[in-house]
Amino acid sequence: MSFQSIKRTALGAALLLIAGSFAFACQSTSSTDASNSDAAEKVYVAPGEHDEFYAFMSGGYSGQLGIYGLPSGRHLKTVPVFSQFGENGYGYSEDTRPLLQTSFGFVPWGDAHHPKVSQTDGVPDGRWLFINENNTPRIARVDLTTFETTEVLEIPNSAGNHASAFVTPNSEYVSAATRFSIPMDEENLQNQDVSIDSYKENFNGTISFIRADKPGEMEVSFQILVPGYDYDLSHAGKGPSDGWSFFTSYNSEEANTMLEKNASRNDKDFIAAVNWRKAEEYANNGECRMVPGEHAHNHVNHDTGLAESEMRDEVCVLNPADNPGMVYFLPTPKSPHGVDVDPTGQYIIAGGKLSTIIPVFAFDKMIDAIERESFAKDIDGIPVLNYNELLHGEVENPGLGPLHTEFDGKGYAYTTAFISSEIVKWDIEKTEVVDRIDTYYSPGHLMIPGGDSQEPFGQYLVALNKITKDRYLPTGPELWHSAQLIDISGDKMKLLLDFPTSGEPHYAQAIPADMIKDKQRKIYDIKTENGNPYKVLNEDETGIERRGNEVHVYMSAIRSHFVPDNIEGIKLGDEVYFHVTNLEQDWDIPHGFAVQGANTAEVLVMPGQTRTLKWTPTKTGVFPFYCTDFCSALHQEMQGYVRVSPEGSDVPLASNAGQERPGSQLLSK
Amino acid sequence: MSFQSIKRTALGAALLLIAGSFAFACQSTSSTDASNSDAAEKVYVAPGEHDEFYAFMSGGYSGQLGIYGLPSGRHLKTVPVFSQFGENGYGYSEDTRPLLQTSFGFVPWGDAHHPKVSQTDGVPDGRWLFINENNTPRIARVDLTTFETTEVLEIPNSAGNHASAFVTPNSEYVSAATRFSIPMDEENLQNQDVSIDSYKENFNGTISFIRADKPGEMEVSFQILVPGYDYDLSHAGKGPSDGWSFFTSYNSEEANTMLEKNASRNDKDFIAAVNWRKAEEYANNGECRMVPGEHAHNHVNHDTGLAESEMRDEVCVLNPADNPGMVYFLPTPKSPHGVDVDPTGQYIIAGGKLSTIIPVFAFDKMIDAIERESFAKDIDGIPVLNYNELLHGEVENPGLGPLHTEFDGKGYAYTTAFISSEIVKWDIEKTEVVDRIDTYYSPGHLMIPGGDSQEPFGQYLVALNKITKDRYLPTGPELWHSAQLIDISGDKMKLLLDFPTSGEPHYAQAIPADMIKDKQRKIYDIKTENGNPYKVLNEDETGIERRGNEVHVYMSAIRSHFVPDNIEGIKLGDEVYFHVTNLEQDWDIPHGFAVQGANTAEVLVMPGQTRTLKWTPTKTGVFPFYCTDFCSALHQEMQGYVRVSPEGSDVPLASNAGQERPGSQLLSK
Repeated sequence: MSFQSIKRTALGAALLLIAGSFAFACQSTSSTDASNSDAAEKVYVAPGEHDEFYAFMSGGYSGQLGIYGLPSGRHLKTVPVFSQFGENGYGYSEDTRPLLQTSFGFVPWGDAHHPKVSQTDGVPDGRWLFINENNTPRIARVDLTTFETTEVLEIPNSAGNHASAFVTPNSEYVSAATRFSIPMDEENLQNQDVSIDSYKENFNGTISFIRADKPGEMEVSFQILVPGYDYDLSHAGKGPSDGWSFFTSYNSEEANTMLEKNASRNDKDFIAAVNWRKAEEYANNGECRMVPGEHAHNHVNHDTGLAESEMRDEVCVLNPADNPGMVYFLPTPKSPHGVDVDPTGQYIIAGGKLSTIIPVFAFDKMIDAIERESFAKDIDGIPVLNYNELLHGEVENPGLGPLHTEFDGKGYAYTTAFISSEIVKWDIEKTEVVDRIDTYYSPGHLMIPGGDSQEPFGQYLVALNKITKDRYLPTGPELWHSAQLIDISGDKMKLLLDFPTSGEPHYAQAIPADMIKDKQRKIYDIKTENGNPYKVLNEDETGIERRGNEVHVYMSAIRSHFVPDNIEGIKLGDEVYFHVTNLEQDWDIPHGFAVQGANTAEVLVMPGQTRTLKWTPTKTGVFPFYCTDFCSALHQEMQGYVRVSPEGSDVPLASNAGQERPGSQLLSK
Repeated sequence: MSFQSIKRTALGAALLLIAGSFAFACQSTSSTDASNSDAAEKVYVAPGEHDEFYAFMSGGYSGQLGIYGLPSGRHLKTVPVFSQFGENGYGYSEDTRPLLQTSFGFVPWGDAHHPKVSQTDGVPDGRWLFINENNTPRIARVDLTTFETTEVLEIPNSAGNHASAFVTPNSEYVSAATRFSIPMDEENLQNQDVSIDSYKENFNGTISFIRADKPGEMEVSFQILVPGYDYDLSHAGKGPSDGWSFFTSYNSEEANTMLEKNASRNDKDFIAAVNWRKAEEYANNGECRMVPGEHAHNHVNHDTGLAESEMRDEVCVLNPADNPGMVYFLPTPKSPHGVDVDPTGQYIIAGGKLSTIIPVFAFDKMIDAIERESFAKDIDGIPVLNYNELLHGEVENPGLGPLHTEFDGKGYAYTTAFISSEIVKWDIEKTEVVDRIDTYYSPGHLMIPGGDSQEPFGQYLVALNKITKDRYLPTGPELWHSAQLIDISGDKMKLLLDFPTSGEPHYAQAIPADMIKDKQRKIYDIKTENGNPYKVLNEDETGIERRGNEVHVYMSAIRSHFVPDNIEGIKLGDEVYFHVTNLEQDWDIPHGFAVQGANTAEVLVMPGQTRTLKWTPTKTGVFPFYCTDFCSALHQEMQGYVRVSPEGSDVPLASNAGQERPGSQLLSK
């Protein structure tokens, strides 16, 4: 094995930052101080053993959710959320396509940023995972007993849904906010056809609270109109600060072009502190305005297993100018990025990406200042507090470009420094740096299992690095991103392992495996859990049916044959729906279904499940279909044929006519 | 960490095989005999170090190619090949969509089976990797300096392109064959609208040879008409057998329904031994018939970087009845699956999935029998040789369900036994088993680096297991498949590591990292290597242009801004093409581009590259676009706006009008 590493110097990067365009000054350095042998044993999960933690990593521009095991770093699975996924037909099959509907029509891709495990009493509970889509604002729910996306809610009156999905301590709400403000008049909030130059006059943002604790019933409970800044990240309060959520903003300059320069001028931007219980009270009391706001709500119907999409057309809006006591601005240096609340709920920490210190705000000081009405000024009805009155302290020398902070539950915080490529450990009470470790390269988020909750599980820290360069065997110009596993069980951080990550993991979450591993669903009980209207319970129920130019094939799959496996009477112009039920009731025996020339993906059908593939034949002839998942020693024999005749042909609709074929019937529903 | 493992018993599986439906009898067993500590050190690749081998694993029903490092088992990257891939816009962007065109129209998914690294003199050379698509028959080329798919060729007169992509020793050809025979008359080979019951009368297969050694110029050089069996797998001869290729077949029963039973009746099926030099000679001499055969040839234009698709409409066909000396049948027990040629090129080994022995054929005996014209019979002009005359030996007790064999170059062969879940090592000369090791569970293919070439690199063996069950933390009903890394450097095989694999890896290849790692392209030189007609070389060349209802935006991206970043004058009904050029010339600095509500994926643009995203706005208002790949500390500021006005609006087309904006011009091309 060759040894290589390149380290960007902080000074070089800092200088180049000023020029707005970075380059990398390089020098050799040791890759790790940890004994390789020790590290090897610490991360090795022997064959047959299991990882200690599930790690849930956002896929970033892949739109998906990556499941990794810790400490091995093994990539266990990709769960499709916002992007089509040919691997199992997600977003292609008739059953799942509705999950990707939006008010802009079908959107086959998304940019997934921040996964967040649901919480009870401020601690991850492993029921669901929420994750946001930035580009066409949406929030999704992933069920952590099936690892399937079960619900997607679009957020209206928003553009760039970055500051989500962050849950409140009992998962009452997922919060969200506009990263990109858009022209919305204060009356009806509709995106307006106005000059972009009129930004300062017309552009506004919204902060949204989405009811999240009822599966299948997510809704935008209320939106709060806020000034036309860029709202970036968020975290909910906890313990004493439960009932509040905190949102960073940048571009308080309200620039609409060349933000790189024009949004980096103010010495301080703001954290918006939102008293969501107060806002909830306003909303519950009917003190909000219903405004138009077309948005899709998509979910998997629990009874049928089919995804459904409905369009909702209005939303409740609150305005701080009309609804006081709901939002306060905390001045925060400088173009803040992450905002994190420590396990006690007392300290609110911002990562100012151009800041040279880390400000630590004290929640009780904030409340005190609010009660004293010690406001510096008012912006659009939002009182601005005084920085110095809120401050618990400032962390000096925290590295260049501090972005995100997580916690170990022992009184320490860990902050990523993007520009100086390091992680800095500091004492929260003393606001003093106690340890630092190099990362390769440029960490964005970091993650400690439970590290943003009231009771961190600790033990490991994962640096989610934005730049990879030479860390792995190169794979052409496009490299996957890089994570680094760091042992934080002792006083000094120790680098254990590099592992590549799919897409661009922004935030991540991790929970102990024992929390959910025994709750995993292995099959769907075909009798009690498959309510799909197109299912068959056995081979006798299979058959074929014509409804005008729609042909429905009710098909079964079991090791190792399909019924029916010979189909005739299809004509050009027909739309053929293959409804495939996997009759297996054993763990890990999926069957797949594909047919030649289909302009869609396969369907991968789990035991007891029914999935539908739509096929519009374009040629006449006889076309094979087959099982795409090697299911038994006779998997290769699991095939069939469908005949397509010209339009107007008189070939009768038939399935499995002929000798030695299992029963299948012509249905006349 | 918990310890779990379940082992399927051979007897249970064998009994259930007869019933055609497997279940799993379970018992506890030790997961590995290797010392965990030893194994941990052997597979650990310390931070900053590199893996020894690139492993290329087919994604199976994902349609993609997985890149893994060995011995770490780390998933380094997914290369999109046959399926759309939102992560980088593959198959969505205007530049790449043509790669997924077929004679059936746009096909967004494929089933990728067998990757094969190009060879020179029978040894992997690391230039390209070929991989087949089974469902809508295609072959793709991946460039191993960029890890990008650069060419896709559809194969006409085929259905189920399973027995590919296997290269000849100097990559002259990639071979392919019909897994599913289809009704083709011998005259014009067009898929016919006939009764499926007429299988024995009308259905035929084809074996295809695709010229592969000229990038961008793949073509079906000739097809050979063969009986209506299912052609399953292949390997080319080497050394003395160079010039021949071998294809397994099953369903010599010519069943068209319930193949599980009906295609498992004959005691022997056939290996088709194809003298491709002889066939090539016929083709070159014009002794083939040109028949209709519409098929797409797609490739990335080397000059422009844009994928192009053209339709070809005929193909050269040879018929063994007319062109003797080209194909021979080797009777082979029983429903053979894999066929593998040992490094000497002398031995041809079949995996009979229902066979109780492994037959080892001697190439010289085959040639001798052919020269003696010792034929048992003739099938459609193909002489059938006599099993016993070809045999070097039979391996007794090779495990149940032998499927595939690879070689270590030291005289040993390693065969997977699917049903008894083990790998069996045997002496090729003596045809005697010398070692066996359990796998978890049910291995399909296996892979030794270079293990199907003339000079295996040896050292490791990877079992590609079809069933995963409890090997990793469970992830709902759908589990990724499982690979196991086995040390074969000593006399006894030692299990080192389990690692999950994306999709369903069928075959795999591995080459030493040193063969290609220093040849990896890091950027595209924007001046000499970007011939994209929509590129800009600098910000002065950016601009916007209307052509009827098409609007073209020529945009640049560099840390951390787009030019233009404010665009007006778009109207409903317009089709907007964003041509984004990444001006960076540094390694690992991609920029991404996405715009709200687009009904397509982002584009991820490598340094020096231009990519095009097509957007058809559906609403009026102002919509943001942004960089999707965290590119610098000011990445969050890398955003812009595009204004959409109603149809008939008189808002003039404009980009970056206004103050403090970089130069951008209104073009009137």
